Amino acid sequence: MRKPAPSDRPLHDLIADRWSPRAFSSRIPAGETLARLFEAARWAPSAFNEQPWRFIIATKDNAEEYGRLLACLVEANRAWAVLAPVLGILVTKKTFTKNGKPNPWAQHDGGMALENLMLQAVAEGMFAHGMGGFDPDKVRETYNVPEDFKPTTAFALGYPGDPAQLSVDYREMELAPRERKPLEELVFSGSWEMASPTVKP
Amino acid sequence: MRKPAPSDRPLHDLIADRWSPRAFSSRIPAGETLARLFEAARWAPSAFNEQPWRFIIATKDNAEEYGRLLACLVEANRAWAVLAPVLGILVTKKTFTKNGKPNPWAQHDGGMALENLMLQAVAEGMFAHGMGGFDPDKVRETYNVPEDFKPTTAFALGYPGDPAQLSVDYREMELAPRERKPLEELVFSGSWEMASPTVKP
Repeated sequence: MRKPAPSDRPLHDLIADRWSPRAFSSRIPAGETLARLFEAARWAPSAFNEQPWRFIIATKDNAEEYGRLLACLVEANRAWAVLAPVLGILVTKKTFTKNGKPNPWAQHDGGMALENLMLQAVAEGMFAHGMGGFDPDKVRETYNVPEDFKPTTAFALGYPGDPAQLSVDYREMELAPRERKPLEELVFSGSWEMASPTVKP
Repeated sequence: MRKPAPSDRPLHDLIADRWSPRAFSSRIPAGETLARLFEAARWAPSAFNEQPWRFIIATKDNAEEYGRLLACLVEANRAWAVLAPVLGILVTKKTFTKNGKPNPWAQHDGGMALENLMLQAVAEGMFAHGMGGFDPDKVRETYNVPEDFKPTTAFALGYPGDPAQLSVDYREMELAPRERKPLEELVFSGSWEMASPTVKP
């Protein structure tokens, strides 16, 4: 299922076609295909090239490991994420390795890496759905995540599936139009909330 | 100047070709071209679709505004960023609009939006270079940024230029190979630092 951004401005397909579905096919991606998604994340930019991103993943062909990761999600997300053949957690390093000081861009840079992953997924015919609804303490315990790292975002990943698999509420969300704030509320010049002439309609 | 990621795994061009140059051409992008970059940011995903990203931008055809934004950068960045025809600041909203509670994904989601912007830039033949080196208090004062928003990341943006414009140190960095940690140090399954079979070489 495609659900391109309803934009008046022509965007690159990779960016327009990325969205966050809940219906996934049971098809498990080939190992090399999956590796390319993390390779894309790997080449994201980061402050001082710290590369504060780590990923914990589980695929459905290892039922036990998949179950351990699924158990870290909140129940509402488990309901649909269980359809996805791959689950993952983005974990970010809180400090700079070179000097041990706090890295204020750890989560920001982790987000850049995860966006790269999501866009490479689109290039492979796949989609990823990010989730805030998971238990970071449970992730820490389950995987022995060190204190210096923060479980940041969970995600479900796979090929698109049939929305008929979803409960009524989620099916409606799956089929609802995509919405964003108008661009002139996001891009300012000169002063706060003064829309930049560049983005005026 | 192209400087594709030296990857053994084939990545989508948009992701492989994105990098962070310091040498920019003086060519000012057309307004509609620039608008598409922010349109790409606009369609990034975010927790509860909060869209916590705002952008303050200045282009060189308005010398006064450009100077105000340039003055927010640290001196070391001003030295090269002054070549770029467009400067910007990503500002992120600290709380959820629906309930006023802290948004733990504000910076993460801001990073996703900025990565979209950087990749759409590549699609337009342009490049963006993110910077942590700027004065957030000065941004807040200069642009009246409300308390509830955090100046997060600065960026320089434009078409590629001749590295000969740069000082010797920056020129060396411009021409140096791109480097990242090995993928098997980034993607784990089962337990922390246990490389996922998916990414083993």
